[in-house]
Amino acid sequence: MLKINQNYQKLPGSYLFSTIGKKVAAYTQANPMKSIIRLGIGDVTQPLAPAILQAMHQAVDEMGRAETFHGYAPDLGYEFLRNAIVENDYAARGCPIAADEIFVSDGAKSDSANIQELFDQNSKIAVCDPVYPVYVDSNVMAGRTGTYDGESGMWSDVIYMPCVMENSFVPEFPRQTPDVIYLCLPNNPTGTTITKAQLQGWVDYANQNGALIIYDGAYEAYISQDTVAHSIYECEGARTCAIELKSFSKNAGFTGVRLGYTVVPKDLQFDGVRLHSMWARRHGTKYNGAPYIVQRAGAAVYSSEGKAQLKEQVAYYMKNAGVIYDGLKEAGYRVFGGVDAPYIWLKTPEGMSSWEFFDLLLTEANVVGTPGSGFGPSGEGYFRLTAFGSYENTVEALQRIRKM
Amino acid sequence: MLKINQNYQKLPGSYLFSTIGKKVAAYTQANPMKSIIRLGIGDVTQPLAPAILQAMHQAVDEMGRAETFHGYAPDLGYEFLRNAIVENDYAARGCPIAADEIFVSDGAKSDSANIQELFDQNSKIAVCDPVYPVYVDSNVMAGRTGTYDGESGMWSDVIYMPCVMENSFVPEFPRQTPDVIYLCLPNNPTGTTITKAQLQGWVDYANQNGALIIYDGAYEAYISQDTVAHSIYECEGARTCAIELKSFSKNAGFTGVRLGYTVVPKDLQFDGVRLHSMWARRHGTKYNGAPYIVQRAGAAVYSSEGKAQLKEQVAYYMKNAGVIYDGLKEAGYRVFGGVDAPYIWLKTPEGMSSWEFFDLLLTEANVVGTPGSGFGPSGEGYFRLTAFGSYENTVEALQRIRKM
Repeated sequence: MLKINQNYQKLPGSYLFSTIGKKVAAYTQANPMKSIIRLGIGDVTQPLAPAILQAMHQAVDEMGRAETFHGYAPDLGYEFLRNAIVENDYAARGCPIAADEIFVSDGAKSDSANIQELFDQNSKIAVCDPVYPVYVDSNVMAGRTGTYDGESGMWSDVIYMPCVMENSFVPEFPRQTPDVIYLCLPNNPTGTTITKAQLQGWVDYANQNGALIIYDGAYEAYISQDTVAHSIYECEGARTCAIELKSFSKNAGFTGVRLGYTVVPKDLQFDGVRLHSMWARRHGTKYNGAPYIVQRAGAAVYSSEGKAQLKEQVAYYMKNAGVIYDGLKEAGYRVFGGVDAPYIWLKTPEGMSSWEFFDLLLTEANVVGTPGSGFGPSGEGYFRLTAFGSYENTVEALQRIRKM
Repeated sequence: MLKINQNYQKLPGSYLFSTIGKKVAAYTQANPMKSIIRLGIGDVTQPLAPAILQAMHQAVDEMGRAETFHGYAPDLGYEFLRNAIVENDYAARGCPIAADEIFVSDGAKSDSANIQELFDQNSKIAVCDPVYPVYVDSNVMAGRTGTYDGESGMWSDVIYMPCVMENSFVPEFPRQTPDVIYLCLPNNPTGTTITKAQLQGWVDYANQNGALIIYDGAYEAYISQDTVAHSIYECEGARTCAIELKSFSKNAGFTGVRLGYTVVPKDLQFDGVRLHSMWARRHGTKYNGAPYIVQRAGAAVYSSEGKAQLKEQVAYYMKNAGVIYDGLKEAGYRVFGGVDAPYIWLKTPEGMSSWEFFDLLLTEANVVGTPGSGFGPSGEGYFRLTAFGSYENTVEALQRIRKM
């Protein structure tokens, strides 16, 4: 008789965005005349850039002729894309990464969930709190997180690194030494980040302690300050302690196109084994490559037209971020993020929980955001708004919030 | 200090297709004037059908306008695709499957590798021998297969069901009761299949023993005989014991487009838990949906134009299968498969191993096939040729083989 993987049963049923959806649906049904503005979910709204569309049309045409048809892609991705990635994202920044250290995938969500398969069952993970839920949940499913305490919202075998106002949202080295450290910088959900010097401190810490850093750089395109690193490989020694995950979702609007990549340097060894060989084996065994058409779209991101068009797209969203940041400031809120990231993180008014503020915003301003507590216990008392809406809606939302 | 998942180290380094690649490269280098015909790998060669190209171009255009742009897809796939699947692949065949039991994915390889995450660590799997390597390897990586015996080519904790000439390639109920049974029908690599009545026997066996069947129907489009089931859900009781995996790779040429789906009926319960809820949670946590453009391409497979064009495409490959089957017969080989599948499985000449025959075919006929032993110990003494080449090459290859 088959028995199931009981670790799945441990997952608390906290479907953050489904709860939000239900609350919004209920409010809309009761108030059909109200116009709701959604600044909750981190999904983009701008259409794909013309250079990308052109590349995709061309690739579709190629798939229609026997001479240019493409079947199974190379396991790790097409050379044309891996070379463009290395040239633009690494060589141009002085990072010593080779094309065969790039693994093209269908997105950073899959990669960030799958990467834990390379770790021993008893590995101890450390995460920032609040955090993107996939890092923890994928380890829960693998039975690596111990037991869940519903009251504290914490797992017994996970090391939490609170990122709150009091420490300027900069994680501190944990008391207990972790085997794996997940860092998402610039950060989802807080929209804050750390300096290159601070990141160098984490690289040194990981090398000294034999820990692996999983560095999620999904929001890298939004970095505006010179003191912030665009890749962890800008730091000395990162090749021996860090895997970097990158996404095309936020810099190029690929949330519905699906493309990402993972960098696994060949210098990265644990137990005398290269993680590069392990990840290559995983890719070869459990994955069959990103679609040719999508990889061509990815290459267009690095064309000169693509770069110019996407610079504008990012600027569009960052203008929204400015509108939200300034508007909330003027309305008297304590506001964070929004400078190197498309997320704005605000402190809820004294004595008001994240969900109470959600309800207030929904009913008073008809604006949907995301309660900070949905991202972890230290997110309680905070709230996230995203810059991914249209400019007009964003301006309107902030006018409503200021009138609240 | 991070420790790695040692199960990866257990995987024998038998990169079947990479070994083939090296042998072919060496031969080509030594004999640059010879023209090699590749009937080895199961990759398609015909371009995408016009109806599919049209749907993709249209979807690309939609992605270029804000009003029709698509960001994150629904977790389980777009309704338009799930409804088309249910209507054409299930309702039309009298199979009681609902749209919300369909999980759209990036392909059957990922699904067949990931599905084992739902099983308890100690579950015992049974596989046909020879077999598509992903079923076993994904369980090896999860530490579920015991130790590998290099001599026999077998894992201590895997139940092997030999499929050989002597039993007409029909797997027999194993002596030891498995928790999970992997069945790929029509079969890769043997190209053979079983009747609906025989499949009903497996469904009954699974229900009686509390086992789960993972039914890989990737080659369903090639079925030509009326006695063969197109879905396991044509069998009575399959909703309580079977998950079905389907691919768009071979019926629509999507090896480089990437689309598949998995059916998890809500009646499927083990330990009192619905596998449907578990798979939904996995999809939601570790995957972000197939690209909108690709799902539109998938829907075009079910349009009336798409169906007509793909019927021709399948017929094209099956004509090749006939050429190979008949040609080998005439040349005196014992030949199997090729009637309900695009693979032809032949017995190597007396006293000749799979790899010896590979070398013979390469050097004497300049034709590349796949040694049966690469798919498992019971594949020794057999050899696979695929019908996915061009008609002209296939005819030429068989002329050369007949002259050998």
